[in-house]
Amino acid sequence: MKLQTARGVQDTPPEEKIIKNKVVDTLREVFQLYGFAPLETPIIERYETLTAKFAAGEASDALKETFTLTDQGKRDLGLRFDLTVPLARFVAMNPTLKMPFKRFEMGSVFRDGPIKAGRVRQFWQCDVDTIGSKSMLADAEIIAIMSTGFNKLKLDTIIKVNNRKLLNGILEQAGIENKEEAIISIDKLAKIRVTGVTEELLEKGFKKKQINAIFELIQENISLAGIKKKITSEEGKEGVKELEEVFSYLRSMGIKSAKFDVSLARGLAYYTGTIFEAFMKKGKITSSLAAGGRWDNMIGNFMGGNRVVPAVGGSFGLVPIIESIKEKENLVKRTLAKVFVIPIKTEKESLQIVQQLRNEGIAADYDLNGRGMSKNLQYANTLGIPYAIIIGSDEVKKNKVLLRDMVTGDQKLLALKSVVKKLKQDG
Amino acid sequence: MKLQTARGVQDTPPEEKIIKNKVVDTLREVFQLYGFAPLETPIIERYETLTAKFAAGEASDALKETFTLTDQGKRDLGLRFDLTVPLARFVAMNPTLKMPFKRFEMGSVFRDGPIKAGRVRQFWQCDVDTIGSKSMLADAEIIAIMSTGFNKLKLDTIIKVNNRKLLNGILEQAGIENKEEAIISIDKLAKIRVTGVTEELLEKGFKKKQINAIFELIQENISLAGIKKKITSEEGKEGVKELEEVFSYLRSMGIKSAKFDVSLARGLAYYTGTIFEAFMKKGKITSSLAAGGRWDNMIGNFMGGNRVVPAVGGSFGLVPIIESIKEKENLVKRTLAKVFVIPIKTEKESLQIVQQLRNEGIAADYDLNGRGMSKNLQYANTLGIPYAIIIGSDEVKKNKVLLRDMVTGDQKLLALKSVVKKLKQDG
Repeated sequence: MKLQTARGVQDTPPEEKIIKNKVVDTLREVFQLYGFAPLETPIIERYETLTAKFAAGEASDALKETFTLTDQGKRDLGLRFDLTVPLARFVAMNPTLKMPFKRFEMGSVFRDGPIKAGRVRQFWQCDVDTIGSKSMLADAEIIAIMSTGFNKLKLDTIIKVNNRKLLNGILEQAGIENKEEAIISIDKLAKIRVTGVTEELLEKGFKKKQINAIFELIQENISLAGIKKKITSEEGKEGVKELEEVFSYLRSMGIKSAKFDVSLARGLAYYTGTIFEAFMKKGKITSSLAAGGRWDNMIGNFMGGNRVVPAVGGSFGLVPIIESIKEKENLVKRTLAKVFVIPIKTEKESLQIVQQLRNEGIAADYDLNGRGMSKNLQYANTLGIPYAIIIGSDEVKKNKVLLRDMVTGDQKLLALKSVVKKLKQDG
Repeated sequence: MKLQTARGVQDTPPEEKIIKNKVVDTLREVFQLYGFAPLETPIIERYETLTAKFAAGEASDALKETFTLTDQGKRDLGLRFDLTVPLARFVAMNPTLKMPFKRFEMGSVFRDGPIKAGRVRQFWQCDVDTIGSKSMLADAEIIAIMSTGFNKLKLDTIIKVNNRKLLNGILEQAGIENKEEAIISIDKLAKIRVTGVTEELLEKGFKKKQINAIFELIQENISLAGIKKKITSEEGKEGVKELEEVFSYLRSMGIKSAKFDVSLARGLAYYTGTIFEAFMKKGKITSSLAAGGRWDNMIGNFMGGNRVVPAVGGSFGLVPIIESIKEKENLVKRTLAKVFVIPIKTEKESLQIVQQLRNEGIAADYDLNGRGMSKNLQYANTLGIPYAIIIGSDEVKKNKVLLRDMVTGDQKLLALKSVVKKLKQDG
């Protein structure tokens, strides 16, 4: 029998999971600071829910890649491919939910897609959404969450902000009907510049005049005030107004890392207003770390009838965030233990001491296998534990312990109280 | 289209997820205090892994209830039904792992079983295991984790401890061959007393003489010293010795909630030594809150060949733990927001204040929909937010805010600094 994971899924070993937990905990803390509450939806959904037209419409790739299964009662089921469909179902199923409903959910989603570099079949999504508010305050709040989140993760990011109504207005002014196709090319502006986008639009059959009209408004670094002067379509003006509101709220909130960028397009067609995307200012990671926008139509469509249920939210990409953190930190930790306790024929006293450390809130590991000193130090070192405590009969007599700094090798004879103080200060 | 979850799975709405997170966070903190590191294994495994003989052997019910699926490459897959099989696979796949490998994993497992009260098809397991140590210290550590965990959760529990070798020895002395069948009945001693167990054993065809011999040793409240005097079989003596060691370590560690109980049997046949199970001392919840034991054979069997990979671990039952906590707490919280900020025509200033609160680490929510006072208070009340802050132009002029206690209705005009201090003290 071959020992391996299923194709396209992977184990997250301790050295990875420790970083992942740190990111997830930080995001959760920030979501909660902003008054968002946790929700957990099941991994298995009815296949009918996943294929509901609203869900399929724009996310048909996701649908093709849905893992399907049946239960013992032959019911058709699927593994969720995102956290948005389950959210829409949850809101639709709970009509007495108090609005606005501010929730976050973090968990695994599944895509049975082709395996390429960086593509896996099970990965986490971290979503935060406000359901039931049309106010641009709700949009500003999601952007503020991204800003606060990246601050707490010590990642220097910029959040580009735009608006689908503005983009639609610009394309209308340029006389373009196939807006989706044009948007796909415009989305590449930062990468392939005006020359590249122009070429691509020409290839797609857009006219030179239309393309010129697009670039009359879509310019890198054009300000919102600059756009405002040139926009004439009603939808475009509405977009500008919404953006002005969002930035006004962000100013009141003291959020400075958000910046208007008219070239930001975002692929997903279900966005209806504000869109935003966060990038590292420097470093190798050029893909976005988080993105989101307003999606006012999906939940209403899902519920049927004519209800409009406004929604705005964002999603954090754990993989690029973790990569960005790793780029800065190079210490591998295989455990969160702060100290490894090594008894030298002082088992009983050492056990008492290791428990005292734990009672003080200091994560402490202990030699379980009765090994010699050098093997124990090697073990602590491989696991990346920063300190060791060595307790021989001499130490017991003196009522002290020998604290060893695993990085420098320095050893000091200290009272346990001093060790506790030092390890606590050490964070 | 019917809006519903798949059969047998359920949403965990905020008021439930908040409690669940609290339990999961506490357990994680305790696991890490004891030097255990986090691992995450995939939800999807190769079907072959799940059906491997070792896995099927004892857990054949779980296997019958395994959700199966295939990927686009027609590979046979299944959803994991526990966290033990993935752990065994992970250890077997990573031969360079430093031993002892102390890991915990918390996540969803799946069983396609019949739907009864309290049985669901997706539920969380919280497992903690030490791989690669034969020492009874490792067993004591798992029991200590249970004790510390329940202390931190403020649940008054007793941890019953026994040993499979001792039980086997007793049954050997009683001349019983079909030990598994006898153990299933003995496991019910606390519920149906000696009379009930005797009846059941007679029905199963055991002889009166055998049954008497069993109860010669298996008595409620018999001490380990009492058993030791009566046990004659080699395996039984070995079990007593192991128990003596475990309790000696627990005494050194200051763990007092563990108690020897010779009638504790635990169903799963893969246990090879120490077994333990935690129960509430009082209250309605009589099912166990956590359980575990030593399982020295499974990983070696899984890897094939003659390797022995000792293992000991425990599993916490989130559902009974959450039920026990709910029994004591009756406040429903639908958010972790500590305060709800209500502007009265002071949007800009109020936004600044809500951000100041968040910067101070105080979870704060804000009126997104421009509602009137009474609707806002009603909203905050429904969500279970303990405080509201009301900011009108008068408050802005005085550079103060009106803090309202949502439970008592008391209102006080305070400087923001005092509010921050009060809300922080309030926990």
